[in-house]
Amino acid sequence: MSEESSTVSLAVIPGDGIGPEVTAEAVKVLLAVTDGGPVRLELTEYPLGAEHWLATGETLPDSTLEALKGHDAILFGAVGAAPGDKSIPSGLLEREMLLKLRFSLDHYVNLRPSRLYPGVASPLANPGTVDFIVVREGTEGPYTGNGGVLREGTPHEVATEVSLNTAYGVERVVRDAFRRASERPRKKLTLVHKHNVLVYAGRLWKRTVERVAVEFPEVSHDYLHVDAATIFLVTDPSRFDVIVTDNLFGDIITDLAAAVTGGIGLAASGNINMDGTFPSMFEPVHGSAPDIAGQQKADPTAAILSAALLLRHLGLEKEAARVEQAVEEDLAARTGEPRTTAEVGNAIAAAVS
Amino acid sequence: MSEESSTVSLAVIPGDGIGPEVTAEAVKVLLAVTDGGPVRLELTEYPLGAEHWLATGETLPDSTLEALKGHDAILFGAVGAAPGDKSIPSGLLEREMLLKLRFSLDHYVNLRPSRLYPGVASPLANPGTVDFIVVREGTEGPYTGNGGVLREGTPHEVATEVSLNTAYGVERVVRDAFRRASERPRKKLTLVHKHNVLVYAGRLWKRTVERVAVEFPEVSHDYLHVDAATIFLVTDPSRFDVIVTDNLFGDIITDLAAAVTGGIGLAASGNINMDGTFPSMFEPVHGSAPDIAGQQKADPTAAILSAALLLRHLGLEKEAARVEQAVEEDLAARTGEPRTTAEVGNAIAAAVS
Ligand SMILES: CC(C)[C@H](C(=O)O)[C@@H](O)C(=O)O
Ligand SMILES: CC(C)[C@H](C(=O)O)[C@@H](O)C(=O)O
Repeated sequence: MSEESSTVSLAVIPGDGIGPEVTAEAVKVLLAVTDGGPVRLELTEYPLGAEHWLATGETLPDSTLEALKGHDAILFGAVGAAPGDKSIPSGLLEREMLLKLRFSLDHYVNLRPSRLYPGVASPLANPGTVDFIVVREGTEGPYTGNGGVLREGTPHEVATEVSLNTAYGVERVVRDAFRRASERPRKKLTLVHKHNVLVYAGRLWKRTVERVAVEFPEVSHDYLHVDAATIFLVTDPSRFDVIVTDNLFGDIITDLAAAVTGGIGLAASGNINMDGTFPSMFEPVHGSAPDIAGQQKADPTAAILSAALLLRHLGLEKEAARVEQAVEEDLAARTGEPRTTAEVGNAIAAAVS
Repeated sequence: MSEESSTVSLAVIPGDGIGPEVTAEAVKVLLAVTDGGPVRLELTEYPLGAEHWLATGETLPDSTLEALKGHDAILFGAVGAAPGDKSIPSGLLEREMLLKLRFSLDHYVNLRPSRLYPGVASPLANPGTVDFIVVREGTEGPYTGNGGVLREGTPHEVATEVSLNTAYGVERVVRDAFRRASERPRKKLTLVHKHNVLVYAGRLWKRTVERVAVEFPEVSHDYLHVDAATIFLVTDPSRFDVIVTDNLFGDIITDLAAAVTGGIGLAASGNINMDGTFPSMFEPVHGSAPDIAGQQKADPTAAILSAALLLRHLGLEKEAARVEQAVEEDLAARTGEPRTTAEVGNAIAAAVS
């Protein structure tokens, strides 16, 4: 996508819980920031998630997946049933819809920026300046659904989980992370893994980083075990610039990073196919938070910042920056008075209009 | 072991880096607290680790492993070569010595208490009262060394890591965690896993917790995904009482928990075989910290608190409590003036004499 094209076709998947509420605000902001500009957004909503499953028994039908492939990008809310809801098998929506999308659309770059915005409170006493991105691998590792169970439910049960890692998969995400690092002022990349225990996967990741590093002599790089990385995330988060890591470690450290930078109410993410073979998908890091759903209590900021990542991915850098600027100003002006989800969205939409 | 026996035979493995320094102080405290009492400690030192490997090519010879089995308990320092040291294959000592000990001696309960002592600074602005234990499984999960590599070093490389989980292994550690929870005032257990993605292992862990819970009706229990657990560890660590989790998740969250409660310089651990089939092993959570080795800069408190866990495991509850009390007072009295490793050890040894 470039600014010359006049229409961008977006799929919108609001999902469950607070998903629809926060997505509505992200859409509002997207429409506001592109209004009157050269690019017109065309939105198609897809009713997927818990309610859709209860009504139809479908998680992500092939026809929907095919339809989604026809869009330029996807805006995603959140999925997941309420923890107590026994009518939906636990994890079903996450796996057969969210993860199925990431895998089917080959979203190998799971991009998660962490920035402590001025005015936002961190749980850390002295967070310092925090501004890093995590490039989490999105299509391999322990997320592939490999594994199985033997003698289930007996005293002799054996359950396995297999982490799959390929040179192809690791190299493309490592190269993407180096490229992003080379475009940032500090030009520093940290590989996070656990190679002293996970030796086979660890060796592949380490070797790949060493090899790709040669293509980016301007980028410095180091290594941290995942356990040590969690320590630095609370004692010295400003040490990080770009982190590249596997799917599971990335899941863990980005939630921690979000907490450190003011909470998952602010954490944006992109599931990106850098080759452009398939549409990329943008979603807040938070889940569907069923306990506060439908009450206009959710903070739509993470969804709105995810929409900014979507704009940037589509080449609409000016619009992306305007949204981020508006969010930054909105955060700095917060007084602690609670606002509704729509009030936050309205304020940011007004600021970018 | 009971207090009637007159001699307790301890194996001491100082290891590498700061290992020997902190272990020396832990031994000093052990000798001081038992001096004049009914139990006499008999110490045998085993020279294992990087230097030993460089001199002999041995990591953990069978004969040493057999000799270790003859002791009542093992006090362990730390192993691991300096990161830059290319002469020792990376991860070799960790796997062929530390992990080999945990697996050979069937240390299925990896016990890691996290307590924020009065006077100790946390990186959190408002940590609240933090006092929980993590019961980390120690003999299964992704730590079994299962996995492999195909077409290594080529663009077609595939590397796998297999997490192995058995009903036998999960049940015994879950039951141990429930028992520990039942003996604590709050009687609350939290299972930490990622069952929405790691479905096979996750189901086994969840089902086992539900089943064992019936034996402990006085213990309440809940569940957190590992990513959410890291959030709570920095936003509300006082919510935790007993956490039970797998080997890898336990590795990650105990380092984070240590950071939150004042650093890995204070975090103790026990690798425990509850059946008494093999001796249990007690070690600080921290590593060998080669950058500060030999400089008397390391804090021996984690090693000393690990020695207290050793005393408790041997039935020497009074002695264990005295050491913990002395550590608590030492921590509360710290002024910020740096002390040497030996000065800290001497102060605590004097207090328990
Ligand atoms: C919902 C879950 C499958 C997902 C993940 O583990 O990737 C979520 O935690 C995330 O980080 O996007
Ligand atoms: C050294 C390493 C193998 C070990 C582990 O991963 O268990 C360490 O991090 C620990 O937590 O004791």
